[in-house]
Amino acid sequence: MSADTPDVYDEFLDHVQQLSYVADAGGLLQWDQQVMMPEGGTPARSKQQSALSTLHHDLLTDDDLGEYLATLEDTSLDPEQQAVVREVRREHERARKVPRDLIERISEATSEALPVWEQARADDDFETYAPVLEELVDLRREYAEAIDPDRDPYAVLFEEFEPHLGLDTAERILGRLRDELVPLIDEIADSEVTQPRPFDGTYPVDEQEALVRAALDDLGFDWDRGRLDTSAHPFTSGTQFDARITTRFDEEKPLDSLSSTIHEFGHATYALGLPDEQYGTPLGDARDLTVHESQSRLWENHIGRSQAFWEHFMPTVEDHLSIEASAEDAYRAVNRVYDDNPIRVEADELTYHMHIVLRFEIERDLIAGDLDVSEVPAVWNDKMEEYLGIRPDTDAEGCLQDIHWTNGTFGYFPTYSLGSVLAAQLYDAAEAAIGPIDDAVRAGEFEDLHEWLTQNVHRHGKRYTTDALIEEATGQAYTADHFLEYVTEKYTGLYDL
Amino acid sequence: MSADTPDVYDEFLDHVQQLSYVADAGGLLQWDQQVMMPEGGTPARSKQQSALSTLHHDLLTDDDLGEYLATLEDTSLDPEQQAVVREVRREHERARKVPRDLIERISEATSEALPVWEQARADDDFETYAPVLEELVDLRREYAEAIDPDRDPYAVLFEEFEPHLGLDTAERILGRLRDELVPLIDEIADSEVTQPRPFDGTYPVDEQEALVRAALDDLGFDWDRGRLDTSAHPFTSGTQFDARITTRFDEEKPLDSLSSTIHEFGHATYALGLPDEQYGTPLGDARDLTVHESQSRLWENHIGRSQAFWEHFMPTVEDHLSIEASAEDAYRAVNRVYDDNPIRVEADELTYHMHIVLRFEIERDLIAGDLDVSEVPAVWNDKMEEYLGIRPDTDAEGCLQDIHWTNGTFGYFPTYSLGSVLAAQLYDAAEAAIGPIDDAVRAGEFEDLHEWLTQNVHRHGKRYTTDALIEEATGQAYTADHFLEYVTEKYTGLYDL
Repeated sequence: MSADTPDVYDEFLDHVQQLSYVADAGGLLQWDQQVMMPEGGTPARSKQQSALSTLHHDLLTDDDLGEYLATLEDTSLDPEQQAVVREVRREHERARKVPRDLIERISEATSEALPVWEQARADDDFETYAPVLEELVDLRREYAEAIDPDRDPYAVLFEEFEPHLGLDTAERILGRLRDELVPLIDEIADSEVTQPRPFDGTYPVDEQEALVRAALDDLGFDWDRGRLDTSAHPFTSGTQFDARITTRFDEEKPLDSLSSTIHEFGHATYALGLPDEQYGTPLGDARDLTVHESQSRLWENHIGRSQAFWEHFMPTVEDHLSIEASAEDAYRAVNRVYDDNPIRVEADELTYHMHIVLRFEIERDLIAGDLDVSEVPAVWNDKMEEYLGIRPDTDAEGCLQDIHWTNGTFGYFPTYSLGSVLAAQLYDAAEAAIGPIDDAVRAGEFEDLHEWLTQNVHRHGKRYTTDALIEEATGQAYTADHFLEYVTEKYTGLYDL
Repeated sequence: MSADTPDVYDEFLDHVQQLSYVADAGGLLQWDQQVMMPEGGTPARSKQQSALSTLHHDLLTDDDLGEYLATLEDTSLDPEQQAVVREVRREHERARKVPRDLIERISEATSEALPVWEQARADDDFETYAPVLEELVDLRREYAEAIDPDRDPYAVLFEEFEPHLGLDTAERILGRLRDELVPLIDEIADSEVTQPRPFDGTYPVDEQEALVRAALDDLGFDWDRGRLDTSAHPFTSGTQFDARITTRFDEEKPLDSLSSTIHEFGHATYALGLPDEQYGTPLGDARDLTVHESQSRLWENHIGRSQAFWEHFMPTVEDHLSIEASAEDAYRAVNRVYDDNPIRVEADELTYHMHIVLRFEIERDLIAGDLDVSEVPAVWNDKMEEYLGIRPDTDAEGCLQDIHWTNGTFGYFPTYSLGSVLAAQLYDAAEAAIGPIDDAVRAGEFEDLHEWLTQNVHRHGKRYTTDALIEEATGQAYTADHFLEYVTEKYTGLYDL
């Protein structure tokens, strides 16, 4: 290690932190746009966002950063420093490989695609959307080829969202879900059991809001470092100092606002568990989408849809909503399998993954050039029938339902299921360490679980790659065993299988 | 004009717009910090703000911009382009003259000064604050000398806030206010008239909020391009697409929330009146503080404290607050002269300016080195006695009351009075053009006045220098005549002088 290495590393880290601060400023602008901004503000906000994106891209790709990385390559660094360099190098190299012109073309194409998609969905008219989708597929393929012309372009795109598990792992996991969940879903469809529906009815928004705030209090949300607001689509944004949740309310769907709030709580606790002192560096930043989604799904499903939680929480529900139901009925209601639902975001914890598998298979084949855009509606519907036993009446309820492709996003969908699978693995590891979680939940005690997740997942930031983090936290390689065992046991009980 | 001038100008303008977008992004971060951010967010927000400031400073001072400006110097431009170049050149040259190191020292010194000032004010202890103030005075003198060592440093500082009127004009106007208002204030103190106080009492915050929202509706606030929120200190932030007002509520002071909301409405209408198509350029940006303050004072005082307004608005007040009073009594109450009040922000429309004059005289002498920091309390109290006939009981109620100097701000205070003076001149010019404003206000019609201000002030952005804008809008040079006539007539009536 040369004498001036500490200086170089410090200068490098300064640069990295500037990058991160600009990204977080951009994140606030987005949060504001979706939560606070008056409608007329859009033209100015677009320009502000674009200016920050340009500055961020310039900082990420500039020669200074390349020189720091080159210098640091030949120096001995401690493991944390090595992790920082690894993460920044990957981002820097990917960004430098993509021509500015291509980024602009993708940005324009997605802007233009949005109203076309909205209209096509409203009109149930895939024909007018098809050329737009084709252009986006072509552009993303070009993007992947710019980054690495020698690899499967879909694998390259997937790594944008999950850089460290590899597409082969994703295929293995999603393949197992498909093979083992389809028979389970079939069995449920054949079951005589119907679940009670005590939450059918109308519940005023202000009562629902009081309820979700009570839920956040109960789970231990840190209001000194967070907010809850409403937006058209629930999301979480922010940092370890300031993590903001949004939810949305439908008078007829009180369970939706509750479960989406608990889901976002999981994302927020991940952000809030990142180490303060590493803010602005990869060690203070979340480990990508699989791990992020594992946190939201763990809280939403393993806690929020557990029998123990409803035994604990039903009195609070009754305090806020005009409802009377046993904890058992509530538990059954929140876990009802919607076997006639074609919409992903309305799916239950089980059928949800078939929605993901079919999207994954279709987008992978689209990017590979093995599937023509014109074939998407038919393939979509065939797979829906094969995996879920239902055929959407319209493309609006089929392949036009999600915004992801219109946003130019291919390779994102798998992380939803990969996160659920990881949630089950982490839950079992936590339980092995801290004892029966159900008992704690029944007593309204969430602190030990929260602490275990912070110590074993959150506080590491990006120090470990995803696979290494999973091994570190759970003592075993990433596996779908825990998830499959969990859902099999749960739904066998619920549906007398 | 060389063949490539349009290209150079376009590239120059792109650069200028990037600068402006980054500044506006920073503005949103500040708004959020004061209105929405959870308390724990401070450390991250400081870093984000500082990163944006650095990027902004780099863009403002970089060689590219200097080269554009040099090239454009030799080319023929239309008047609008000339105005853009004039404004950018001034900012660029000022920023380049100030060493980065000095900016950082000022930033550190003001950060450190804040808690010292807060504690000193709480303890009524000027002694501990004195060395802090002395350092800030020295740093700002150094700052002024960096910009122009050959000129009066206070004049250089004043131009930070009002670049185009000149300190001599400020001195002339403030001198006239002092000479002509002191006798008027004396007469009022001797008057037998006491004003009614129908607003004494307690008014719930939600009722006050409904009232100020009704006032904004009534005045024509564009909610599609704006918001109203609460913050510790009222302010306005934003652009022509998104102008956000804040106010604050005190249960015992319903007139304060109302008048501060109308004041901020004036600032917001200025922002909203700037041309959309010039967003991001000086032609789409407000003409500094004198003009900005003229807009807030015009609406707050000439409209919001007029007899006509209270004749129109009193029924709305009665709809929202538990109060019954004649319009005449309300008008008298909102114009009561507080002849025993030592606090600037609580002062009425008349005595307010003596608070400004004394601050101006003190800070000018401090920066000139003609007044020692240790002498400030005594000089402050002597001037209070001379101008307002009162002597503060404590320094907390005297020279420690304002945050401006602690923020390192010297030369800002005069713009408050300069804006009031301009408001009166603009009001008379508007009335000459559109007819009796009182009649329109009595009928609840604000559109013609709003339109006149937009056409004659707002839409010009920074196209004209302040003095030229005043001439263009009013047909005469900047003068205190209108203001002095206005207050003399108003207070002669109110106090039977």
